[in-house]
Amino acid sequence: MNSVNKNDKITTVGTIIIGDEILSGRTVDQNLHYIAMKLESKGFKLREVRVISDETVHIVRTVNELRAANDYVITTGGIGPTHDDRTSEAIAKALDVPYVINEEALELLRKYYQENLNQNRVKMAKMPMGADIITNPVTIAPGFKIKNIFVLAGVPNIMQAMLDHVLPLMNAGPRPMVKTIATKVGEGEIADKLSAIQDAYPSVQIGSYPHFSREGHSLSIVVRGYDVLEVDKAFSECKQMLETIGGVDPSQNIIKIF
Amino acid sequence: MNSVNKNDKITTVGTIIIGDEILSGRTVDQNLHYIAMKLESKGFKLREVRVISDETVHIVRTVNELRAANDYVITTGGIGPTHDDRTSEAIAKALDVPYVINEEALELLRKYYQENLNQNRVKMAKMPMGADIITNPVTIAPGFKIKNIFVLAGVPNIMQAMLDHVLPLMNAGPRPMVKTIATKVGEGEIADKLSAIQDAYPSVQIGSYPHFSREGHSLSIVVRGYDVLEVDKAFSECKQMLETIGGVDPSQNIIKIF
Repeated sequence: MNSVNKNDKITTVGTIIIGDEILSGRTVDQNLHYIAMKLESKGFKLREVRVISDETVHIVRTVNELRAANDYVITTGGIGPTHDDRTSEAIAKALDVPYVINEEALELLRKYYQENLNQNRVKMAKMPMGADIITNPVTIAPGFKIKNIFVLAGVPNIMQAMLDHVLPLMNAGPRPMVKTIATKVGEGEIADKLSAIQDAYPSVQIGSYPHFSREGHSLSIVVRGYDVLEVDKAFSECKQMLETIGGVDPSQNIIKIF
Repeated sequence: MNSVNKNDKITTVGTIIIGDEILSGRTVDQNLHYIAMKLESKGFKLREVRVISDETVHIVRTVNELRAANDYVITTGGIGPTHDDRTSEAIAKALDVPYVINEEALELLRKYYQENLNQNRVKMAKMPMGADIITNPVTIAPGFKIKNIFVLAGVPNIMQAMLDHVLPLMNAGPRPMVKTIATKVGEGEIADKLSAIQDAYPSVQIGSYPHFSREGHSLSIVVRGYDVLEVDKAFSECKQMLETIGGVDPSQNIIKIF
Protein backbone atom coordinates (compact mmCIF):
# COMPACT_ATOMS: atom_id res chain seq x y z
CA MET A 1 0.00 0.00 0.00
CA ASN A 2 1.53 3.28 -1.10
CA SER A 3 -0.85 5.70 0.51
CA VAL A 4 0.34 7.19 3.78
CA ASN A 5 -1.46 9.77 5.79
CA LYS A 6 1.11 12.49 6.24
CA ASN A 7 -0.50 13.51 9.52
CA ASP A 8 0.18 10.16 11.15
CA LYS A 9 2.61 10.65 13.96
CA ILE A 10 6.09 9.30 13.34
CA THR A 11 7.19 6.84 16.04
CA THR A 12 10.80 7.33 17.14
CA VAL A 13 13.15 4.81 18.73
CA GLY A 14 16.52 5.23 20.43
CA THR A 15 18.78 2.17 20.66
CA ILE A 16 21.49 1.50 23.24
CA ILE A 17 24.11 -1.16 22.53
CA ILE A 18 25.71 -2.01 25.86
CA GLY A 19 29.09 -3.71 25.90
CA ASP A 20 32.76 -2.94 26.48
CA GLU A 21 33.63 -5.62 23.94
CA ILE A 22 32.21 -3.55 21.04
CA LEU A 23 34.05 -0.41 22.16
CA SER A 24 37.37 -2.23 22.52
CA GLY A 25 37.06 -3.69 19.01
CA ARG A 26 37.10 -7.24 20.41
CA THR A 27 33.64 -8.00 19.03
CA VAL A 28 32.14 -6.79 15.74
CA ASP A 29 28.67 -5.40 16.35
CA GLN A 30 26.01 -7.42 14.51
CA ASN A 31 22.95 -5.83 16.04
CA LEU A 32 22.88 -2.23 14.81
CA HIS A 33 22.10 -3.04 11.18
CA TYR A 34 19.49 -5.67 11.99
CA ILE A 35 17.66 -3.33 14.35
CA ALA A 36 17.85 -0.43 11.85
CA MET A 37 16.45 -2.53 8.98
CA LYS A 38 13.66 -4.07 11.05
CA LEU A 39 12.55 -0.73 12.52
CA GLU A 40 12.52 0.92 9.10
CA SER A 41 10.50 -1.90 7.56
CA LYS A 42 7.91 -1.81 10.33
CA GLY A 43 7.26 1.94 10.45
CA PHE A 44 9.59 3.11 13.23
CA LYS A 45 12.14 5.88 12.89
CA LEU A 46 15.47 5.02 14.52
CA ARG A 47 16.63 8.45 15.69
CA GLU A 48 19.89 7.57 17.41
CA VAL A 49 22.08 4.65 18.44
CA ARG A 50 24.52 4.82 21.32
CA VAL A 51 27.19 2.23 21.97
CA ILE A 52 28.22 2.47 25.62
CA SER A 53 30.24 0.58 28.20
CA ASP A 54 28.93 -1.69 30.96
CA GLU A 55 29.29 1.02 33.64
CA THR A 56 26.06 1.42 35.63
CA VAL A 57 26.23 5.22 35.79
CA HIS A 58 26.63 5.40 32.03
CA ILE A 59 23.70 3.05 31.39
CA VAL A 60 21.43 4.98 33.79
CA ARG A 61 22.21 8.35 32.18
CA THR A 62 21.86 7.08 28.61
CA VAL A 63 18.56 5.28 29.26
CA ASN A 64 17.08 8.38 30.86
CA GLU A 65 18.21 10.66 28.04
CA LEU A 66 16.90 8.42 25.27
CA ARG A 67 13.60 7.48 26.90
CA ALA A 68 12.76 11.15 27.34
CA ALA A 69 13.65 11.92 23.71
CA ASN A 70 11.94 8.98 21.98
CA ASP A 71 8.71 7.02 21.92
CA TYR A 72 10.62 3.81 22.61
CA VAL A 73 14.06 2.69 23.74
CA ILE A 74 15.60 -0.66 22.82
CA THR A 75 18.67 -1.87 24.70
CA THR A 76 20.86 -4.86 23.83
CA GLY A 77 23.38 -6.61 26.06
CA GLY A 78 24.23 -6.97 29.72
CA ILE A 79 21.41 -9.22 30.96
CA GLY A 80 23.38 -12.41 31.67
CA PRO A 81 24.36 -13.89 35.07
CA THR A 82 27.87 -12.44 35.54
CA HIS A 83 29.08 -9.40 37.48
CA ASP A 84 29.60 -7.40 34.26
CA ASP A 85 25.91 -7.80 33.31
CA ARG A 86 24.55 -4.61 34.81
CA THR A 87 21.75 -3.56 32.45
CA SER A 88 18.71 -4.80 34.41
CA GLU A 89 19.79 -3.26 37.69
CA ALA A 90 20.79 -0.02 35.94
CA ILE A 91 17.34 0.25 34.38
CA ALA A 92 15.71 -0.22 37.79
CA LYS A 93 17.94 2.63 38.98
CA ALA A 94 17.10 4.81 35.98
CA LEU A 95 13.38 4.36 36.69
CA ASP A 96 13.86 4.52 40.47
CA VAL A 97 11.99 1.27 41.10
CA PRO A 98 13.13 -1.77 43.14
CA TYR A 99 15.28 -4.45 41.45
CA VAL A 100 13.49 -7.68 42.31
CA ILE A 101 12.92 -11.27 41.26
CA ASN A 102 10.26 -11.59 38.56
CA GLU A 103 8.27 -14.71 39.44
CA GLU A 104 7.35 -15.53 35.84
CA ALA A 105 11.01 -15.35 34.79
CA LEU A 106 12.04 -17.46 37.77
CA GLU A 107 9.49 -20.09 36.86
CA LEU A 108 10.87 -20.33 33.31
CA LEU A 109 14.41 -20.70 34.63
CA ARG A 110 13.29 -23.29 37.21
CA LYS A 111 11.64 -25.44 34.53
CA TYR A 112 14.65 -25.24 32.27
CA TYR A 113 17.54 -25.61 34.73
CA GLN A 114 15.75 -27.74 37.34
CA GLU A 115 18.33 -28.83 39.94
CA ASN A 116 20.99 -26.72 38.18
CA LEU A 117 19.19 -23.48 39.01
CA ASN A 118 21.81 -21.89 41.25
CA GLN A 119 22.01 -18.34 42.63
CA ASN A 120 24.02 -17.16 39.62
CA ARG A 121 21.21 -18.12 37.29
CA VAL A 122 18.52 -16.73 39.59
CA LYS A 123 20.10 -13.34 38.87
CA MET A 124 18.71 -13.62 35.34
CA ALA A 125 15.20 -13.44 36.85
CA LYS A 126 15.95 -10.13 38.57
CA MET A 127 14.34 -7.13 36.90
CA PRO A 128 12.90 -3.72 37.73
CA MET A 129 9.63 -4.16 39.63
CA GLY A 130 6.69 -4.07 37.21
CA ALA A 131 8.60 -5.45 34.20
CA ASP A 132 6.91 -7.77 31.70
CA ILE A 133 9.12 -10.55 30.42
CA ILE A 134 10.15 -10.99 26.77
CA THR A 135 10.62 -14.68 26.06
CA ASN A 136 13.93 -16.07 24.83
CA PRO A 137 13.45 -19.14 22.60
CA VAL A 138 17.19 -19.87 22.49
CA THR A 139 18.57 -19.87 26.04
CA ILE A 140 15.37 -19.27 28.08
CA ALA A 141 16.62 -16.34 30.24
CA PRO A 142 14.13 -13.63 29.27
CA GLY A 143 14.47 -9.96 28.39
CA PHE A 144 11.82 -7.54 29.60
CA LYS A 145 9.71 -4.51 28.85
CA ILE A 146 9.08 -1.73 31.33
CA LYS A 147 7.44 1.59 30.44
CA ASN A 148 8.72 2.46 26.96
CA ILE A 149 11.95 0.46 27.34
CA PHE A 150 12.58 -2.95 25.73
CA VAL A 151 15.55 -4.77 27.21
CA LEU A 152 16.97 -7.43 24.90
CA ALA A 153 19.92 -9.84 24.98
CA GLY A 154 23.17 -8.91 23.22
CA VAL A 155 23.87 -12.27 21.55
CA PRO A 156 22.69 -11.65 17.97
CA ASN A 157 20.40 -14.64 17.36
CA ILE A 158 18.71 -14.19 20.75
CA MET A 159 18.39 -10.42 20.21
CA GLN A 160 16.80 -11.03 16.80
CA ALA A 161 14.24 -13.50 18.16
CA MET A 162 13.32 -11.09 20.97
CA LEU A 163 13.04 -8.10 18.63
CA ASP A 164 10.82 -9.97 16.18
CA HIS A 165 8.65 -10.93 19.13
CA VAL A 166 8.26 -7.40 20.55
CA LEU A 167 7.88 -5.29 17.39
CA PRO A 168 4.20 -6.23 16.98
CA LEU A 169 3.62 -4.98 20.56
CA MET A 170 4.89 -1.49 19.72
CA ASN A 171 2.73 1.17 18.07
CA ALA A 172 4.24 1.73 14.65
CA GLY A 173 3.88 4.97 12.75
CA PRO A 174 3.59 5.37 8.97
CA ARG A 175 6.23 3.76 6.78
CA PRO A 176 8.10 6.24 4.63
CA MET A 177 8.10 5.90 0.85
CA VAL A 178 11.66 5.61 -0.48
CA LYS A 179 12.82 5.91 -4.11
CA THR A 180 16.42 5.68 -5.26
CA ILE A 181 18.36 6.56 -8.42
CA ALA A 182 21.88 5.24 -8.95
CA THR A 183 24.10 7.34 -11.22
CA LYS A 184 27.74 7.81 -12.22
CA VAL A 185 27.36 11.60 -12.15
CA GLY A 186 29.47 13.16 -9.40
CA GLU A 187 27.97 14.92 -6.38
CA GLY A 188 29.99 18.02 -7.23
CA GLU A 189 28.19 18.32 -10.60
CA ILE A 190 24.69 18.38 -9.19
CA ALA A 191 24.81 19.56 -5.57
CA ASP A 192 23.26 22.98 -6.37
CA LYS A 193 20.47 21.45 -8.48
CA LEU A 194 19.74 18.81 -5.87
CA SER A 195 19.64 21.45 -3.17
CA ALA A 196 17.10 23.47 -5.21
CA ILE A 197 14.85 20.38 -5.50
CA GLN A 198 15.20 19.78 -1.75
CA ASP A 199 14.18 23.40 -1.10
CA ALA A 200 11.12 23.00 -3.33
CA TYR A 201 9.96 19.88 -1.45
CA PRO A 202 10.54 20.50 2.25
CA SER A 203 8.33 17.56 3.27
CA VAL A 204 10.72 15.04 1.65
CA GLN A 205 14.30 14.24 2.53
CA ILE A 206 16.77 13.96 -0.33
CA GLY A 207 19.97 12.10 0.52
CA SER A 208 23.08 11.82 -1.64
CA TYR A 209 25.36 8.84 -0.97
CA PRO A 210 28.60 8.37 -2.92
CA HIS A 211 30.28 4.96 -3.17
CA PHE A 212 33.84 4.25 -4.20
CA SER A 213 34.75 0.70 -5.11
CA ARG A 214 37.05 -1.14 -7.47
CA GLU A 215 34.44 -0.72 -10.19
CA GLY A 216 34.73 3.03 -9.78
CA HIS A 217 32.55 5.77 -8.41
CA SER A 218 28.77 5.74 -8.18
CA LEU A 219 26.18 7.85 -6.42
CA SER A 220 22.77 6.99 -4.94
CA ILE A 221 20.18 9.73 -4.69
CA VAL A 222 17.52 8.70 -2.21
CA VAL A 223 14.16 10.48 -1.91
CA ARG A 224 12.21 9.66 1.22
CA GLY A 225 9.03 10.97 2.72
CA TYR A 226 5.59 10.22 4.10
CA ASP A 227 3.60 12.06 1.43
CA VAL A 228 3.58 9.82 -1.63
CA LEU A 229 2.70 12.59 -4.10
CA GLU A 230 5.50 14.82 -2.88
CA VAL A 231 8.01 11.94 -3.00
CA ASP A 232 6.93 11.15 -6.56
CA LYS A 233 7.22 14.76 -7.67
CA ALA A 234 10.61 15.34 -6.03
CA PHE A 235 11.86 12.06 -7.45
CA SER A 236 10.72 12.97 -10.98
CA GLU A 237 12.58 16.25 -10.74
CA CYS A 238 15.76 14.46 -9.65
CA LYS A 239 15.41 12.03 -12.54
CA GLN A 240 14.78 14.79 -15.06
CA MET A 241 17.71 16.80 -13.72
CA LEU A 242 20.03 13.81 -14.21
CA GLU A 243 18.65 13.10 -17.70
CA THR A 244 19.37 16.62 -18.89
CA ILE A 245 22.74 17.15 -17.24
CA GLY A 246 25.74 16.82 -19.61
CA GLY A 247 27.82 13.75 -18.87
CA VAL A 248 30.86 12.26 -20.63
CA ASP A 249 28.78 9.14 -21.20
CA PRO A 250 25.10 10.07 -20.85
CA SER A 251 24.10 6.37 -20.58
CA GLN A 252 25.67 6.48 -17.12
CA ASN A 253 23.50 9.35 -15.94
CA ILE A 254 20.87 6.91 -14.71
CA ILE A 255 22.11 3.41 -14.02
CA LYS A 256 19.22 2.07 -12.00
CA ILE A 257 15.99 3.15 -10.36
CA PHE A 258 14.64 1.26 -7.36
CA MET B 1 56.53 -4.11 25.82
CA ASN B 2 54.43 -5.38 28.69
CA SER B 3 55.23 -2.80 31.30
CA VAL B 4 52.69 -0.05 31.70
CA ASN B 5 52.82 2.68 34.27
CA LYS B 6 49.43 2.46 35.95
CA ASN B 7 49.57 6.16 36.74
CA ASP B 8 49.62 7.16 33.07
CA LYS B 9 46.45 9.00 32.25
CA ILE B 10 44.01 7.08 30.08
CA THR B 11 43.08 9.00 26.92
CA THR B 12 39.37 8.82 26.08
CA VAL B 13 37.69 9.25 22.70
CA GLY B 14 34.04 9.72 21.74
CA THR B 15 33.03 8.87 18.17
CA ILE B 16 30.08 10.27 16.22
CA ILE B 17 28.89 8.46 13.09
CA ILE B 18 26.77 10.93 11.16
CA GLY B 19 24.34 9.65 8.56
CA ASP B 20 20.65 8.98 8.06
CA GLU B 21 21.58 6.04 5.81
CA ILE B 22 22.96 4.03 8.75
CA LEU B 23 19.90 4.71 10.91
CA SER B 24 17.49 3.72 8.14
CA GLY B 25 19.32 0.43 7.58
CA ARG B 26 20.10 1.40 3.98
CA THR B 27 23.86 1.26 4.59
CA VAL B 28 25.76 -1.18 6.81
CA ASP B 29 28.18 0.72 9.01
CA GLN B 30 31.77 -0.24 8.30
CA ASN B 31 33.49 2.40 10.39
CA LEU B 32 32.68 1.59 14.02
CA HIS B 33 34.72 -1.60 14.23
CA TYR B 34 37.72 -0.16 12.37
CA ILE B 35 37.82 2.88 14.65
CA ALA B 36 37.38 0.73 17.78
CA MET B 37 40.22 -1.63 16.81
CA LYS B 38 42.61 1.14 15.81
CA LEU B 39 42.00 3.17 18.96
CA GLU B 40 42.47 0.14 21.20
CA SER B 41 45.71 -0.84 19.47
CA LYS B 42 47.16 2.66 19.77
CA GLY B 43 46.40 3.33 23.44
CA PHE B 44 43.09 5.21 23.28
CA LYS B 45 39.96 4.25 25.18
CA LEU B 46 36.81 4.54 23.05
CA ARG B 47 34.23 5.53 25.65
CA GLU B 48 31.13 5.92 23.53
CA VAL B 49 29.89 5.86 19.93
CA ARG B 50 26.80 7.71 18.80
CA VAL B 51 25.14 7.17 15.45
CA ILE B 52 23.05 10.23 14.63
CA SER B 53 21.13 11.77 11.73
CA ASP B 54 22.28 14.60 9.46
CA GLU B 55 20.22 17.21 11.36
CA THR B 56 22.35 20.23 12.30
CA VAL B 57 20.84 20.65 15.76
CA HIS B 58 21.53 17.01 16.56
CA ILE B 59 25.16 17.24 15.37
CA VAL B 60 25.77 20.45 17.37
CA ARG B 61 24.40 18.98 20.60
CA THR B 62 26.21 15.66 20.24
CA VAL B 63 29.57 17.25 19.41
CA ASN B 64 29.34 19.53 22.42
CA GLU B 65 28.38 16.71 24.77
CA LEU B 66 31.14 14.38 23.64
CA ARG B 67 33.92 16.97 23.41
CA ALA B 68 33.25 17.99 27.01
CA ALA B 69 33.29 14.38 28.20
CA ASN B 70 36.35 13.09 26.32
CA ASP B 71 39.92 13.98 25.45
CA TYR B 72 39.13 13.67 21.74
CA VAL B 73 36.12 13.43 19.44
CA ILE B 74 36.20 11.73 16.05
CA THR B 75 33.33 12.32 13.61
CA THR B 76 32.69 10.48 10.35
CA GLY B 77 30.40 11.52 7.51
CA GLY B 78 28.67 14.60 6.20
CA ILE B 79 31.59 16.56 4.70
CA GLY B 80 30.74 16.24 0.98
CA PRO B 81 29.37 18.92 -1.37
CA THR B 82 25.61 18.27 -1.15
CA HIS B 83 22.89 19.95 0.94
CA ASP B 84 22.69 16.94 3.29
CA ASP B 85 26.39 17.30 4.20
CA ARG B 86 26.04 19.46 7.28
CA THR B 87 28.86 18.32 9.57
CA SER B 88 31.41 21.11 8.93
CA GLU B 89 28.93 23.93 9.38
CA ALA B 90 27.45 22.23 12.46
CA ILE B 91 30.89 22.00 14.06
CA ALA B 92 31.49 25.71 13.42
CA LYS B 93 28.15 26.30 15.17
CA ALA B 94 29.04 23.98 18.06
CA LEU B 95 32.29 25.90 18.62
CA ASP B 96 30.68 29.27 17.87
CA VAL B 97 33.27 30.21 15.27
CA PRO B 98 32.71 31.45 11.68
CA TYR B 99 32.25 28.89 8.88
CA VAL B 100 34.70 30.04 6.23
CA ILE B 101 36.78 28.93 3.24
CA ASN B 102 40.05 27.31 4.30
CA GLU B 103 42.65 28.55 1.79
CA GLU B 104 44.82 25.43 2.02
CA ALA B 105 41.83 23.19 1.32
CA LEU B 106 40.74 25.44 -1.55
CA GLU B 107 44.21 25.24 -3.09
CA LEU B 108 44.13 21.41 -3.00
CA LEU B 109 40.70 21.38 -4.66
CA ARG B 110 41.84 23.95 -7.27
CA LYS B 111 44.86 21.84 -8.26
CA TYR B 112 42.79 18.69 -8.50
CA TYR B 113 39.61 19.92 -10.19
CA GLN B 114 41.16 22.82 -12.17
CA GLU B 115 38.45 24.25 -14.48
CA ASN B 116 35.87 21.88 -12.95
CA LEU B 117 36.11 23.54 -9.54
CA ASN B 118 32.56 24.87 -9.30
CA GLN B 119 30.73 26.41 -6.34
CA ASN B 120 29.43 23.00 -5.23
CA ARG B 121 32.97 21.72 -4.80
CA VAL B 122 34.19 24.94 -3.17
CA LYS B 123 31.81 24.02 -0.34
CA MET B 124 34.20 21.18 0.53
CA ALA B 125 36.82 23.83 1.44
CA LYS B 126 34.48 25.47 3.96
CA MET B 127 35.37 24.73 7.57
CA PRO B 128 35.22 26.31 11.02
CA MET B 129 37.71 29.19 11.20
CA GLY B 130 41.02 27.96 12.64
CA ALA B 131 40.70 24.37 11.38
CA ASP B 132 43.76 22.42 10.21
CA ILE B 133 43.14 20.20 7.23
CA ILE B 134 43.46 16.40 7.24
CA THR B 135 44.54 15.24 3.79
CA ASN B 136 42.47 12.82 1.76
CA PRO B 137 44.62 10.63 -0.50
CA VAL B 138 41.58 9.16 -2.29
CA THR B 139 39.28 11.99 -3.41
CA ILE B 140 41.33 15.06 -2.30
CA ALA B 141 38.54 16.91 -0.38
CA PRO B 142 40.10 17.11 3.08
CA GLY B 143 38.80 16.52 6.58
CA PHE B 144 39.93 18.77 9.38
CA LYS B 145 40.96 19.08 13.00
CA ILE B 146 39.82 21.85 15.29
CA LYS B 147 40.43 21.89 19.06
CA ASN B 148 39.98 18.28 20.19
CA ILE B 149 37.69 17.32 17.27
CA PHE B 150 38.82 15.30 14.22
CA VAL B 151 36.36 15.49 11.34
CA LEU B 152 36.72 12.59 8.89
CA ALA B 153 34.90 11.44 5.76
CA GLY B 154 32.22 8.74 6.01
CA VAL B 155 33.27 6.64 2.99
CA PRO B 156 35.18 3.77 4.64
CA ASN B 157 38.42 3.73 2.66
CA ILE B 158 38.76 7.52 2.91
CA MET B 159 37.90 7.47 6.63
CA GLN B 160 40.54 4.78 7.22
CA ALA B 161 43.27 6.72 5.40
CA MET B 162 42.41 9.87 7.36
CA LEU B 163 42.31 8.05 10.71
CA ASP B 164 45.67 6.38 10.11
CA HIS B 165 47.05 9.81 9.28
CA VAL B 166 45.75 11.57 12.40
CA LEU B 167 46.28 8.94 15.12
CA PRO B 168 50.01 9.76 15.44
CA LEU B 169 49.03 13.40 16.05
CA MET B 170 46.93 12.49 19.09
CA ASN B 171 48.43 11.94 22.55
CA ALA B 172 47.89 8.28 23.32
CA GLY B 173 47.66 6.92 26.83
CA PRO B 174 48.89 3.54 28.06
CA ARG B 175 47.77 0.41 26.21
CA PRO B 176 45.90 -2.03 28.40
CA MET B 177 47.14 -5.57 28.83
CA VAL B 178 44.48 -8.09 27.78
CA LYS B 179 44.43 -11.86 28.42
CA THR B 180 41.65 -14.21 27.37
CA ILE B 181 40.57 -17.77 28.25
CA ALA B 182 38.07 -19.60 26.07
CA THR B 183 36.02 -22.31 27.82
CA LYS B 184 32.93 -24.46 27.39
CA VAL B 185 31.92 -23.91 31.01
CA GLY B 186 28.68 -21.94 31.27
CA GLU B 187 28.49 -18.45 32.77
CA GLY B 188 25.89 -19.67 35.23
CA GLU B 189 28.37 -22.17 36.71
CA ILE B 190 31.05 -19.63 37.53
CA ALA B 191 29.45 -16.21 37.88
CA ASP B 192 29.88 -16.09 41.67
CA LYS B 193 33.51 -17.24 41.51
CA LEU B 194 34.29 -14.78 38.75
CA SER B 195 32.67 -11.99 40.71
CA ALA B 196 34.83 -12.82 43.74
CA ILE B 197 37.99 -12.58 41.61
CA GLN B 198 36.76 -9.27 40.19
CA ASP B 199 36.23 -7.99 43.75
CA ALA B 200 39.75 -9.04 44.73
CA TYR B 201 41.31 -7.16 41.79
CA PRO B 202 39.47 -3.85 41.46
CA SER B 203 42.15 -2.39 39.16
CA VAL B 204 41.39 -4.94 36.43
CA GLN B 205 38.22 -5.44 34.43
CA ILE B 206 36.99 -9.01 34.00
CA GLY B 207 34.54 -9.48 31.13
CA SER B 208 32.51 -12.60 30.39
CA TYR B 209 31.32 -13.04 26.80
CA PRO B 210 29.18 -16.02 25.79
CA HIS B 211 28.95 -17.14 22.16
CA PHE B 212 26.34 -19.39 20.62
CA SER B 213 27.05 -20.88 17.23
CA ARG B 214 26.35 -24.03 15.27
CA GLU B 215 29.34 -25.61 17.00
CA GLY B 216 27.66 -25.03 20.34
CA HIS B 217 28.22 -22.76 23.28
CA SER B 218 31.51 -21.21 24.33
CA LEU B 219 32.58 -18.48 26.70
CA SER B 220 35.45 -16.01 26.64
CA ILE B 221 36.73 -14.62 29.91
CA VAL B 222 38.72 -11.48 29.25
CA VAL B 223 40.98 -9.87 31.86
CA ARG B 224 42.06 -6.33 31.03
CA GLY B 225 43.99 -3.72 32.92
CA TYR B 226 46.89 -1.28 32.98
CA ASP B 227 48.81 -2.93 35.82
CA VAL B 228 50.54 -5.97 34.34
CA LEU B 229 51.09 -7.73 37.67
CA GLU B 230 47.47 -7.38 38.69
CA VAL B 231 46.26 -8.61 35.28
CA ASP B 232 48.56 -11.64 35.57
CA LYS B 233 47.38 -12.45 39.09
CA ALA B 234 43.68 -12.07 38.28
CA PHE B 235 44.13 -14.11 35.13
CA SER B 236 45.89 -16.93 37.02
CA GLU B 237 43.01 -17.07 39.48
CA CYS B 238 40.47 -17.31 36.64
CA LYS B 239 42.51 -20.10 35.05
CA GLN B 240 42.86 -22.00 38.32
CA MET B 241 39.17 -21.60 39.05
CA LEU B 242 38.29 -23.11 35.66
CA GLU B 243 40.80 -25.96 36.11
CA THR B 244 39.30 -27.01 39.41
CA ILE B 245 35.62 -26.61 38.56
CA GLY B 246 33.77 -29.85 37.79
CA GLY B 247 32.77 -30.18 34.17
CA VAL B 248 31.12 -33.00 32.23
CA ASP B 249 34.24 -33.11 30.06
CA PRO B 250 37.08 -31.41 31.97
CA SER B 251 39.17 -31.13 28.77
CA GLN B 252 36.69 -28.45 27.71
CA ASN B 253 37.26 -26.32 30.80
CA ILE B 254 40.09 -24.47 29.08
CA ILE B 255 40.00 -24.56 25.30
CA LYS B 256 42.43 -21.79 24.52
CA ILE B 257 44.44 -19.04 26.16
CA PHE B 258 45.42 -15.93 24.20
